[in-house]
Amino acid sequence: MRLPCCLLSVLLLVPAFPVLRADEGMWTFDNLPLGTLKAKYGFEPSAAWLKRLQLGTLRFPGGTGAFVSADGLVITNHHVGRGSIQQVSSGKADFVRDGFTASGRDQEVKVPGLEVMMLVATDEVTAQVNAAVPPGSSGSEALKARQNALSALKGAREKASGLTCEGVVLYQGGEYWLYSYRKFTDVRLVAAPELQVAAFGGDADNYTYPRWNLDFSLFRVYEHDRPYRPEAFLPFSARALRAGDLTLISGHPGTTSRQETLEQMRYAKEVFIPFRLKSMARLRAALEAYAATSEEAARVSADVLYGLDNSRKRLEGQLAGLARPQSLQLVEARETALREAVAKDPALRARAGESWDRISGAVADQRRLLAEYNTVDPRISVLLGFALTLARLPVEQALPSAQRLPEFTEGSLKATRDRLTNGRPILPSLDAVRLRTGLEEAQALLGRDHPYVQAMLQGRTPAEVAQAAMAGTRLQEPAYRRELLEGGAAALAASKDPLLALARAFDPFNRAIRKQWEDQVQSVLTAHGARLAEARFKVLGKSQYPDATFSLRLSFGPVATYATGSGTLAQPFTTFLGLFDRNTGWGGNPAAGPWTLPQRWLDRQDRLDLRTPFNFIYACDTVGGNSGSPVVNTQGEFVGINFDSVYEGQGGYYVYDDATKRAVATDARAILESLRKVMDAGWIADELTGR
Amino acid sequence: MRLPCCLLSVLLLVPAFPVLRADEGMWTFDNLPLGTLKAKYGFEPSAAWLKRLQLGTLRFPGGTGAFVSADGLVITNHHVGRGSIQQVSSGKADFVRDGFTASGRDQEVKVPGLEVMMLVATDEVTAQVNAAVPPGSSGSEALKARQNALSALKGAREKASGLTCEGVVLYQGGEYWLYSYRKFTDVRLVAAPELQVAAFGGDADNYTYPRWNLDFSLFRVYEHDRPYRPEAFLPFSARALRAGDLTLISGHPGTTSRQETLEQMRYAKEVFIPFRLKSMARLRAALEAYAATSEEAARVSADVLYGLDNSRKRLEGQLAGLARPQSLQLVEARETALREAVAKDPALRARAGESWDRISGAVADQRRLLAEYNTVDPRISVLLGFALTLARLPVEQALPSAQRLPEFTEGSLKATRDRLTNGRPILPSLDAVRLRTGLEEAQALLGRDHPYVQAMLQGRTPAEVAQAAMAGTRLQEPAYRRELLEGGAAALAASKDPLLALARAFDPFNRAIRKQWEDQVQSVLTAHGARLAEARFKVLGKSQYPDATFSLRLSFGPVATYATGSGTLAQPFTTFLGLFDRNTGWGGNPAAGPWTLPQRWLDRQDRLDLRTPFNFIYACDTVGGNSGSPVVNTQGEFVGINFDSVYEGQGGYYVYDDATKRAVATDARAILESLRKVMDAGWIADELTGR
Repeated sequence: MRLPCCLLSVLLLVPAFPVLRADEGMWTFDNLPLGTLKAKYGFEPSAAWLKRLQLGTLRFPGGTGAFVSADGLVITNHHVGRGSIQQVSSGKADFVRDGFTASGRDQEVKVPGLEVMMLVATDEVTAQVNAAVPPGSSGSEALKARQNALSALKGAREKASGLTCEGVVLYQGGEYWLYSYRKFTDVRLVAAPELQVAAFGGDADNYTYPRWNLDFSLFRVYEHDRPYRPEAFLPFSARALRAGDLTLISGHPGTTSRQETLEQMRYAKEVFIPFRLKSMARLRAALEAYAATSEEAARVSADVLYGLDNSRKRLEGQLAGLARPQSLQLVEARETALREAVAKDPALRARAGESWDRISGAVADQRRLLAEYNTVDPRISVLLGFALTLARLPVEQALPSAQRLPEFTEGSLKATRDRLTNGRPILPSLDAVRLRTGLEEAQALLGRDHPYVQAMLQGRTPAEVAQAAMAGTRLQEPAYRRELLEGGAAALAASKDPLLALARAFDPFNRAIRKQWEDQVQSVLTAHGARLAEARFKVLGKSQYPDATFSLRLSFGPVATYATGSGTLAQPFTTFLGLFDRNTGWGGNPAAGPWTLPQRWLDRQDRLDLRTPFNFIYACDTVGGNSGSPVVNTQGEFVGINFDSVYEGQGGYYVYDDATKRAVATDARAILESLRKVMDAGWIADELTGR
Repeated sequence: MRLPCCLLSVLLLVPAFPVLRADEGMWTFDNLPLGTLKAKYGFEPSAAWLKRLQLGTLRFPGGTGAFVSADGLVITNHHVGRGSIQQVSSGKADFVRDGFTASGRDQEVKVPGLEVMMLVATDEVTAQVNAAVPPGSSGSEALKARQNALSALKGAREKASGLTCEGVVLYQGGEYWLYSYRKFTDVRLVAAPELQVAAFGGDADNYTYPRWNLDFSLFRVYEHDRPYRPEAFLPFSARALRAGDLTLISGHPGTTSRQETLEQMRYAKEVFIPFRLKSMARLRAALEAYAATSEEAARVSADVLYGLDNSRKRLEGQLAGLARPQSLQLVEARETALREAVAKDPALRARAGESWDRISGAVADQRRLLAEYNTVDPRISVLLGFALTLARLPVEQALPSAQRLPEFTEGSLKATRDRLTNGRPILPSLDAVRLRTGLEEAQALLGRDHPYVQAMLQGRTPAEVAQAAMAGTRLQEPAYRRELLEGGAAALAASKDPLLALARAFDPFNRAIRKQWEDQVQSVLTAHGARLAEARFKVLGKSQYPDATFSLRLSFGPVATYATGSGTLAQPFTTFLGLFDRNTGWGGNPAAGPWTLPQRWLDRQDRLDLRTPFNFIYACDTVGGNSGSPVVNTQGEFVGINFDSVYEGQGGYYVYDDATKRAVATDARAILESLRKVMDAGWIADELTGR
């Protein structure tokens, strides 16, 4: 609670030209802030240190992991590995619920299809890519030429090297790279704790701290049916991590929007995020009322409610970040400096001088179209979405691919058809709540006289429309959807399914608003966003880090407290003591709800050294995709595994703020203590500590 | 984080006429919400139950306490008893820092001057008081007549009964009562824990939860040098308190402002609280810069900084409460209903029909005068305040008492002179920071051309003025202030103290703005606030509870979680496990800062049953003055002692909100466990549990 005042004084120092703040940045390994690390922390990583971290870090589907033993043990988050743990479970053995420990290497369980990747080489190909652009190309021609060149380079490299390659675009087109990965395809589950302790506190504790999540799972990479001996791994540290110690993490942050213009961020803050929150609150209230009608209704709506809460917390955090006066002041200062630099340079001015105004114009259109774009949207009902896809398929397939809606072009068609026929169960009574709420929202925001509202309701209430459509439909049955899909236009014409009729009414309005949005908003934001990025890269070069792109990055910062939203300073570490405090304080098992501990944790509590650190917070700049990132000390030793970042710092999606940007990790010591004392996995702990 | 949505649906149900929400209310014992207690909780306290709670509750200076044994043991908060504990400490024995446990009754330490009071009778005297108003009296004449009548009744009652009586005005004048107290003047210290564990987490944790404060101290009432055997006491409960259990607390809530008009609350939200926060942030930044200049500066400014943080957190909580849309919507709904009732009744209309508009007019003046009223204020410097009082004394004393400024009238003069000569040390270098900041604020808010600014600065900077005044003053010396006080006008005229000159420049501007404020704002708010209160009482009668007035009240509500400002649900109870988690997580002793535990707590950790509940939260409606209130279960047994309420619910000063209004108590079980296992006070625990 004290930091805002300090920030105020920091603010007075905001310079005319942008400087990075504190420990900001998700840096590529070719361009690390070595000067800052040396000046601020006296830390000078050697090339070998950096190479080991790079090779020790792995890319998981949707996240990150790391080699942590000489025999190929790999660690990632429980929530990153969860799908794999689920996959190797069976009806009899639920490893997600009950945890899993292989009793020896021969008991490790192969996860079919799981692939992890190690980044072995990065090569800049900016010159080759740019050389492929014919002189005098238009913007879109140039874009296409670059995409083709990068794709060709990637193909050639893969053929030559036998590696898996990826074209990486940094600085919104300022640089083009080829990243080459060694891919491992034999990955076996070694150990995982119970979900209840991995995600202790469930959705309620999500994005918060103090926290007690044992969010890890262990796998092993095999090659030729033998444990793989990695080129590099990150050994578990035997040094005690303390508050103030510098930490570094490597991983794959997914997406940030830190280069948006001031006008775009104002739009996010004043219009878009509040709109989404209100819309989600409306849906939530309707779903809660539905959930109260029966136990079954409560059960089937639980997942949707959790998803809404998760999104809400993230959006509220983003909004709070943008609402701090210093956030947009900083964006404005940076933008002013760039505008001045552009104005001084004739070439830049010709290329990007108008771009801010063009983007502001598009944002004005965005404001105007927002309500219609978001209400005339098939996502208001899963089953309506199926009906719409079915109804559109014959029409779209009759067109040349280039003229179709994007999801029906040749490259996307298979995925679209697959989505239609997948077997995920959908309950019409639940979907009716969504449809009704979506129609009510349209009625409220667009007005009763809007042609879309009139076409959908035809004089009835949203509840009546939803009720009638969902009572009569068979589209919840995958077999029926497949039948219609395979039957084509004739089968569709013959079907009396009420949702198909509703989808036909819906179709033209959705096409119209999508076209307006694409022409007036999206195309302008993309084209002029790229021009601004180009100008920014020309002016600032690599003194800046690129926006996150799910490519390998390094962030750094000390273990450090912060002022929480509930008014106190957060403790740098939590311990096992707090895990049991939380459980007991909620009434103990099983009344503790999301803070329920598995029985063996209660039974084995006395074996544990309860003072062992459990989770900790540190000022590394992270975002979704950093899940499972190894946290290392300056010795390059593994001290914890990153699994979350706090609510109060979610504004970092747009603007980094050193007062609130805190990542949350599971401490390496908690992992060892749990393996040894609770999880019957002493042999694994021994391997991790090199015994 | 989920509650706002539920609130949204509650909001839709706000009726045209006010109903109390959930467990709202600080009820007088003559008018308890017995219907609600029965309907909602199935609880019907008997007259004996209520009498025992009334007689078991004690009024402490600034707080509350309770008899908790047959032999007169009394419990209150550590922070309520702290002054007494300090008072009986000596240089050698610091009972605040080190705690205190009497080794037996003969070792209990008398606290000279400490008086506690037991409410033995309450008598309504509304009819007698109103009968004293002569027909045709003006508003102020009637007010005066009532005050005189109440004062006379109190005097007569004291004389007749030998008790200590107090005139109590409820419902802003709707009812007049005489409360009669038995006063105890021999009160001895029995036991208190160390400050570090009583106020664990210090200012940072203040107003927050989860919390681990062992905030209790034990005294014993004696009469005739023997332990007093009270008529009633609240025995420590042997039943386990659980989440959802109904709790009740009795105590002396100090002040609430729940009857302000919508316009007044808007002013608080939009103008006054933001103004105060900004002003405090300005002072805080200046003090922080000063504190950084030396260790001594850091030491002397620590208290002021803590005080600012405390106020800031409370005001931010109030602001957050007022900022919830449903807060002012509720106030508006209630106001609309009252306006309609007043409009329908000719007598009420004649009396209060104009009052809302008159108050709105005064609020407009308040907005206009705010900056000047708050900057031309002697509180910008302690030493300037002394100088001003000294300079004014001869002038004011020459006037008839009724014409003087209020602090110089005959009734107030002694206290004013006492404040001048008390020995609290003031450091000119610290006070210079306040003075400079105050003058800078005046310059910024009133403008450089404002006559006050010109008179104070005379062409110099605020820093120069503060520096010159503080470098040359001797007013920090109590002896010098006494000398000037005793020397009167002549000594003042002879003194060349620069602060006296500054005070003379300051004087006329302060008098002028005080007069404007009194005439245009305060007198209108008081007179028309009373008329609205009268109307409200006539319409609603005793279906409502009166605003808090530091008289005995009962509140009720279950042990219940809430959604905290950091995004999760709070655990209903904390335990000793969490106490040590917090300490260890901050790095253990002594690096743990405000979370440092006294050494004997670390040494004796293993003796404790760490699962013992420590603090808990419950939905009782409380406010400052409830400190030390006993929390009882439906058996009337003592289950905890109230010591705080959470940040998120501070809006309750204006508007009660059941989603966030949570009080915080130290659990009775934590008190017993601490007495037995750490504080060497088994004999006291035995007495408390009736062994």
